[in-house]
Amino acid sequence: MVTSLASLQDDMLRVAREAKAAAAELAAAATPQKNAALSGMASRLTQQAAAILAANVEDVRKARAAGLSSALIDRLVLDERRLQEMVRSIESVIDLPDPVGEVIASWRRPNGLEIRKVRVPLGVIGIIYESRPNVTSECASLCVKSGNAVLLRGGAESFGSNQAIGAALKAALREARLPQACVSLIPTADRAGVDAMLQLDQWIDVIIPRGGEALIQKIVDTSRIPVIKHAKGVCHVYVDDAADLAMAQTIAFNAKCQRPATCNAMETLLVHRGVAQRFLPQMLQRLRQAKVEIRADEASQRIVPGLAPATEEDWSTEYLDLILSVKVVDSLEAAVEHIRRYGSSHSDAIVTADPTHAERFVRAVDSAAVYVNASTRFTDGYQFGLGAEIGISTDRLHARGPMALEELTTYKYVVYGTGQVRE
Amino acid sequence: MVTSLASLQDDMLRVAREAKAAAAELAAAATPQKNAALSGMASRLTQQAAAILAANVEDVRKARAAGLSSALIDRLVLDERRLQEMVRSIESVIDLPDPVGEVIASWRRPNGLEIRKVRVPLGVIGIIYESRPNVTSECASLCVKSGNAVLLRGGAESFGSNQAIGAALKAALREARLPQACVSLIPTADRAGVDAMLQLDQWIDVIIPRGGEALIQKIVDTSRIPVIKHAKGVCHVYVDDAADLAMAQTIAFNAKCQRPATCNAMETLLVHRGVAQRFLPQMLQRLRQAKVEIRADEASQRIVPGLAPATEEDWSTEYLDLILSVKVVDSLEAAVEHIRRYGSSHSDAIVTADPTHAERFVRAVDSAAVYVNASTRFTDGYQFGLGAEIGISTDRLHARGPMALEELTTYKYVVYGTGQVRE
Repeated sequence: MVTSLASLQDDMLRVAREAKAAAAELAAAATPQKNAALSGMASRLTQQAAAILAANVEDVRKARAAGLSSALIDRLVLDERRLQEMVRSIESVIDLPDPVGEVIASWRRPNGLEIRKVRVPLGVIGIIYESRPNVTSECASLCVKSGNAVLLRGGAESFGSNQAIGAALKAALREARLPQACVSLIPTADRAGVDAMLQLDQWIDVIIPRGGEALIQKIVDTSRIPVIKHAKGVCHVYVDDAADLAMAQTIAFNAKCQRPATCNAMETLLVHRGVAQRFLPQMLQRLRQAKVEIRADEASQRIVPGLAPATEEDWSTEYLDLILSVKVVDSLEAAVEHIRRYGSSHSDAIVTADPTHAERFVRAVDSAAVYVNASTRFTDGYQFGLGAEIGISTDRLHARGPMALEELTTYKYVVYGTGQVRE
Repeated sequence: MVTSLASLQDDMLRVAREAKAAAAELAAAATPQKNAALSGMASRLTQQAAAILAANVEDVRKARAAGLSSALIDRLVLDERRLQEMVRSIESVIDLPDPVGEVIASWRRPNGLEIRKVRVPLGVIGIIYESRPNVTSECASLCVKSGNAVLLRGGAESFGSNQAIGAALKAALREARLPQACVSLIPTADRAGVDAMLQLDQWIDVIIPRGGEALIQKIVDTSRIPVIKHAKGVCHVYVDDAADLAMAQTIAFNAKCQRPATCNAMETLLVHRGVAQRFLPQMLQRLRQAKVEIRADEASQRIVPGLAPATEEDWSTEYLDLILSVKVVDSLEAAVEHIRRYGSSHSDAIVTADPTHAERFVRAVDSAAVYVNASTRFTDGYQFGLGAEIGISTDRLHARGPMALEELTTYKYVVYGTGQVRE
């Protein structure tokens, strides 16, 4: 056991060192070379479809034998259609502008020094995710385009599928004369592989975990490497007393029902007391027709009899399902106070026709995305117009909300002088 | 013991909770109110000078009794002059533009959604530093101006001085009708206070440690809160074969000697083989006249006989002193390779009259600040024109190089719609 743990750590160290060296080369690569690699990745995924799908069939067989839930297996399954979506996703990244080398700002100092703030890649990015094998190619393509080497650690249940996808991606890198170590898969499905990875702060610059709360907390507790978390969304829609109630119903219904399993779906509906009597009966009827389970505070129960009561725990629960907690509030400020106390600072919306109410809400709610008269479901890299998405940061540092190519970069200062020294 | 540790944790939790609540209020404060608080801080430091200096005398007495080094005691000592520098530093922050509320970018989506990326404070910032009591007021003023509550944990040896300064700052906050908890000092000089602080990731948004390598590594290992490190600088000046050698001598001398104890001072001088014979004898003579101890590679020893040899360890050592390692390199690429291998990605310079050489160096060296024909000593918030500095980040995430007001902020997206929902 000791020998195999030591050899795992050696393996991880070797992979991380190679990634660091590859990152230096990739950082200097010109846009056409990076795009050629991406184009090759798309072709290789198509060419190697049979091998990828065969590996996936084997993963799925093992997952069924291990008794994994049907929801998890559904996320794991690849077919021709999903593989073609992966190909299209890579092709769309080719069309995005290369962020590397952009001069973010420049200025001249009184002593003649010219200072330029230039965008550069982060370096080596470690991504830890669960289940879905399409994440492997999506993250790899975004990292390569932004000049970063990437270490991918997918779920144990998709190990074989990811290895097959990784082989296709590496072949494309080789053909484009870029180091294969630009994209690396952690060489074990063992949990100890993650622990070993999280100690390599000299070689890995940032960890981006995507998954459940328990996984993310474990990573934060273990990691010596900075982590950008993609954690939970407890999102609210607040229906103001100055709301257009038809618009409010449309927005709230969309925020809850359009895709309830996503982090930007609404989990709690807050309604101003002044409109609750007019708004709630019809709204809740429509939600219940769509099979949404309602958990309500006492005031809502008085307006719509027969509702199940919400517990204290409901207010901070991310259901990711057709369940909704509902609360009547006395004021806009009470809504803000509820969001501050129970929310997760992900995405929160006000529906109001009064611009001063909107501004009070926008100032007071400190979430990654604050909406006025729109669905919370728009918190997404594509919907924001960023062209892609590596995830949605729920942290405050470095990047907040949807993360795409720019968010995978940092900057350096380049200072041009003519012999200046400090006095 | 168990009781007192539990009560320390309770105290820390209370302080952090109050800071979080204060941060929400401060985030919404208008610029004039924040400036009024800063102005009051400056006045209060002057008014309460006697109490502050008395507390400092007592700190210094204890430090002497404990046998602290004279260098450490020099950093600890306050006098009228240093107190007035603290006052002026706060006044200069009043004049800086308020970063909060700035619209960093805005765009409209085809569906009519208007997206604004708006600058907001980070929240609660924990600063852990050593010794110098002036850091207390500098950090407090920068955090308040940028809308952040701050938890300050200075060195144990300056506990009394910091408490006296903190009392003055809090009085000013109260007078400006801002919560006193906008600026809090950790209520113990005990090391356990730091450990307790680093667990409070629900209340503290970021830790900025300033100090020695051992302190910073301990914090990174312990913290559940994201850390922006202000670690060591192993800075290089590379004298190219196309350098103006008189300029090279001026820059190298300044980078080493102007203030050797700073993180942006040069620790290693790299010289192209083609100019070493002409450059090194005069350069090293000048440095030795300024009492710089030289540690040289074999090639330099052959050019200037009698030099002490550099060991492998020298190349990655931050001397912070009048010591310099010197190496002759075969090419610009060899210089870059040395900087990559031994440097700390802080500040590195090339001296060259050839712009193509300069560009090769600038592209290949991935340091927070890369200089062409200027001293590395310019890596500094004031010298960069940022007006202030909370430190120099050696991390790649969130902020790199000099950190001032903007770097103490993050952003949120505000999205204005007219009823848009996801299809």
